[in-house]
Amino acid sequence: MSFSITKSIAILERTPNVLSSMLKNIPNDWVSCTEGPETWSAFDVIGHLIHGEKTDWMRRTKIILSDKTDKSFEAFDRFAQFKTNRGKSINDLIIEFARLRETNLEELKTLQINESDLKKTGNHPAFGPVSLKQLLATWVAHDLSHIAQISRVMAKHYREDIGPFIQYLRIMN
Amino acid sequence: MSFSITKSIAILERTPNVLSSMLKNIPNDWVSCTEGPETWSAFDVIGHLIHGEKTDWMRRTKIILSDKTDKSFEAFDRFAQFKTNRGKSINDLIIEFARLRETNLEELKTLQINESDLKKTGNHPAFGPVSLKQLLATWVAHDLSHIAQISRVMAKHYREDIGPFIQYLRIMN
Repeated sequence: MSFSITKSIAILERTPNVLSSMLKNIPNDWVSCTEGPETWSAFDVIGHLIHGEKTDWMRRTKIILSDKTDKSFEAFDRFAQFKTNRGKSINDLIIEFARLRETNLEELKTLQINESDLKKTGNHPAFGPVSLKQLLATWVAHDLSHIAQISRVMAKHYREDIGPFIQYLRIMN
Repeated sequence: MSFSITKSIAILERTPNVLSSMLKNIPNDWVSCTEGPETWSAFDVIGHLIHGEKTDWMRRTKIILSDKTDKSFEAFDRFAQFKTNRGKSINDLIIEFARLRETNLEELKTLQINESDLKKTGNHPAFGPVSLKQLLATWVAHDLSHIAQISRVMAKHYREDIGPFIQYLRIMN
């Protein structure tokens, strides 16, 4: 097992700057390109991350650590961002995500989570009991997986332009 | 075709800050973890990017645009970083990469590459003639593919910690 709270916060607190470094003020093609129909652009991914900050990670953390008898999580809406972010710019989303993440990490730190807290569980709507450690580790890995996704989507924007070099770039397939 | 010089520089000039945002001063586990034997850590990937700045992209660009009869590229050493970076810190590599990239982009901009330049070719050691457009598009996609790789390698560091959530994170497989 590799998890620690310190290592987790080190990733979670970096993600807003990573996304800003990648996408702030960038030509719009990079923000709007996708991998094809029904796939997500960088804009869509950041909208999804915003929705997670609002409704998923910290809300579930607080359910796990609460004294409630029923520790069921609400289902997460993977498509909420398509309704809520119409008309916004990528810079708007970057700022909104950074603000939400900062507030969430401040709250996370005040919880002073210890080893016994990490073993406490809540009830996930799809697969039942999950521990606080699993939830927080997933928050971290989820950030990293979406940074990888954004990079992959953007790389594929040049798929037809790289010619024979495609043999060396497995990300294109 | 999606390529443009402006869009390409927009990515190339962001990469040093993206890497710095991800990795500067981060706990060392994140820098040294790999996907298993014979795979690369974030440290190794940045070493590889540094070697590209020194020996690949701009050198090949200048060969293509030169008046030489023989426009053969030298082969690129994919393992040079394992020799040259022993004893360095991740912060050292981030700074070195940023400095090299800045110099290369300054030089790229002075070349004032136009549409007819983009069609000129050099000879790649593995697959023969490649155009300047293909080379520059690959430089961009190569950056993005290695940002995706670093994110994936780091995500997998928590593979055993996320429990049932692994069903939702395809990056782990």
